[in-house]
Amino acid sequence: MFHNPLKLCTYISFVASSTRGFSKQAQKLVYHEHGTPLRVVSIQNETLDPLDTNEVIVKMLIVPVNPADINTIQGVYPVKPSLPAVPGFEGVGEVIEIGSGVKDLSVGDRVIPDTQHLGTWRTYGKFSPDLLMKVPKDVGLTEISGITSNPCTAYRMLKDYNQLSPGDVVIQNGANSACGQNVIQIAKHWGLKTINIVRNRDDIDKLKTYLKSLGGDFVFTEEELKGILRDPSLPKPKLALNCVGGNSATNLLRTLVNKGVMVTYGGMSREPVQIPTSAFIFKDITLRGHWMTRWQKENKNSTERKTMMNELTELMRAGKLAAPAHKFVTLTNFQEALMNTMSIQGKSGLKYYIDFRQSES
Amino acid sequence: MFHNPLKLCTYISFVASSTRGFSKQAQKLVYHEHGTPLRVVSIQNETLDPLDTNEVIVKMLIVPVNPADINTIQGVYPVKPSLPAVPGFEGVGEVIEIGSGVKDLSVGDRVIPDTQHLGTWRTYGKFSPDLLMKVPKDVGLTEISGITSNPCTAYRMLKDYNQLSPGDVVIQNGANSACGQNVIQIAKHWGLKTINIVRNRDDIDKLKTYLKSLGGDFVFTEEELKGILRDPSLPKPKLALNCVGGNSATNLLRTLVNKGVMVTYGGMSREPVQIPTSAFIFKDITLRGHWMTRWQKENKNSTERKTMMNELTELMRAGKLAAPAHKFVTLTNFQEALMNTMSIQGKSGLKYYIDFRQSES
Repeated sequence: MFHNPLKLCTYISFVASSTRGFSKQAQKLVYHEHGTPLRVVSIQNETLDPLDTNEVIVKMLIVPVNPADINTIQGVYPVKPSLPAVPGFEGVGEVIEIGSGVKDLSVGDRVIPDTQHLGTWRTYGKFSPDLLMKVPKDVGLTEISGITSNPCTAYRMLKDYNQLSPGDVVIQNGANSACGQNVIQIAKHWGLKTINIVRNRDDIDKLKTYLKSLGGDFVFTEEELKGILRDPSLPKPKLALNCVGGNSATNLLRTLVNKGVMVTYGGMSREPVQIPTSAFIFKDITLRGHWMTRWQKENKNSTERKTMMNELTELMRAGKLAAPAHKFVTLTNFQEALMNTMSIQGKSGLKYYIDFRQSES
Repeated sequence: MFHNPLKLCTYISFVASSTRGFSKQAQKLVYHEHGTPLRVVSIQNETLDPLDTNEVIVKMLIVPVNPADINTIQGVYPVKPSLPAVPGFEGVGEVIEIGSGVKDLSVGDRVIPDTQHLGTWRTYGKFSPDLLMKVPKDVGLTEISGITSNPCTAYRMLKDYNQLSPGDVVIQNGANSACGQNVIQIAKHWGLKTINIVRNRDDIDKLKTYLKSLGGDFVFTEEELKGILRDPSLPKPKLALNCVGGNSATNLLRTLVNKGVMVTYGGMSREPVQIPTSAFIFKDITLRGHWMTRWQKENKNSTERKTMMNELTELMRAGKLAAPAHKFVTLTNFQEALMNTMSIQGKSGLKYYIDFRQSES
């Protein structure tokens, strides 16, 4: 992580000083009211009080900026941290100091949040260890920092809603989203075939090539799918994953086998899902929704969750579950990350991460 | 069944003649092509050939005229009898003659169809016994003649889609439909509460009183429901039953508890079901469909089916599952029944039955 020896020295000297119990200077993003993120979010200095016996101090390393973070700042997400709040559901950090009563974490451990809303957009945070989950150090930071949202969402949607066997087919729209890319990679690993639907664009061939390189079997634009809906050579999916809504969702549904399932986990078109009555009655289609935040809460200590985390980190370690194309910004450039994430699917096509690795205070 | 001694005599003399193996004169409705029922359906005389050893002759008594019969004649229903075809999914008849090899049925048994499409709109029919199910004689003819569609649909929808306990709440639109009335009565018997939504009309108070007399706990018009959607005193249903679609379905959905289920079994508004993305993701709503024809086919010899038929006939015998308000027409007046059933929810508000009890040929 610290490839620059100078930085490593600084880091060691910081740890040495902080473990002596001095207050720690830190920076965080904060909002005092809900509203447009660019208006309500600002940087703030803070002094971390000395540790309690059952606390740890975490130096954040990188945090992904997710649409859910934006919606939470706007006040339109069902998770409502009390105000003023530090944004940020996800991220990865390193434990740099532990209280004398802490048993399950050590200095140097790498951790991610293990609670509904930790507030990760900060250089340093003082947390109770039961809000954190230790993760392996030999997994890429970019990958592991976002593991609890998109990779977990992709994993559960492929596993929980219809029983799939190798060779079975899954169709998804928004296939180039961060989650969509994870769906392709996990499905590939499990021997499932994917039909991936994306919006048309100038460099569509490049995108098709990229999604196929991740393991996608078919990639079609929305218009291309419409043209082949009744084509008998189009394999019939047992599962559809919808993060768009509107006509796009209706078209996914039309491709399904009888007794197929469509799972909605996003609504980028801002249009409702429209279902013809006949799909319910005569095709016996089931419609479900998936919200990873609820699943994590309801399954916090479950075997399924441990199995999932192990399998996902293993895939990341093996290079089979890559982070989406992305850009790092420093904390002071957070507004660029906000702006990008607020636009539908990200105008740049890149996922933004705030990178704290070079911040010293 | 035959309260008139004269009719009984005629009947006995007919049986006596038919059991001697003479050909039997009968009448049936028939259509040679799909289309508007009033245009394509006509009465036809036929001569039933003498019985094979493994056949029975059934004299039909009464048959309900269902929307599914109309849609099948129109060619827009997924069940497609080969043409020319006799319409009619349901009905009740009496076995008047049996072949020498028939073991499970006797002359005098009362029977209903036990197959996807028997073609019941006929005075007499010659059938294989495995297409028939024997039913008790002490249950009202009107009730038992329609048992396999609406009562079974209501029963399965209340049982199979969300686990309900006494005191739990169910909401339904089209509550005054034949199926809706069955839902009210079965729910009442099981200790479930019902919120019943109907379209506004001149005699709305009369309808409300009637549905409450069947056991409905609440009856609201569509407009009244809209006004109380956010009223915290409105009990939160775990199950919604939708036979309308469009805005009506969306409003049902809005009343559901988290993890609630909406089952669609009809689309009288001819508008698709529209679901906001947030209902899937944050309320974890599940949408399903129910088609009784499929269920009957998939569960023909199941214990669940036997249990259901026993429980429903018991309710009918006890007067707790009444047929909807109805009108009988003779076979020659079949066009009145077709016209009424073709109009949405029946212009007359009555369910039509063809009554063969007075027909002698």
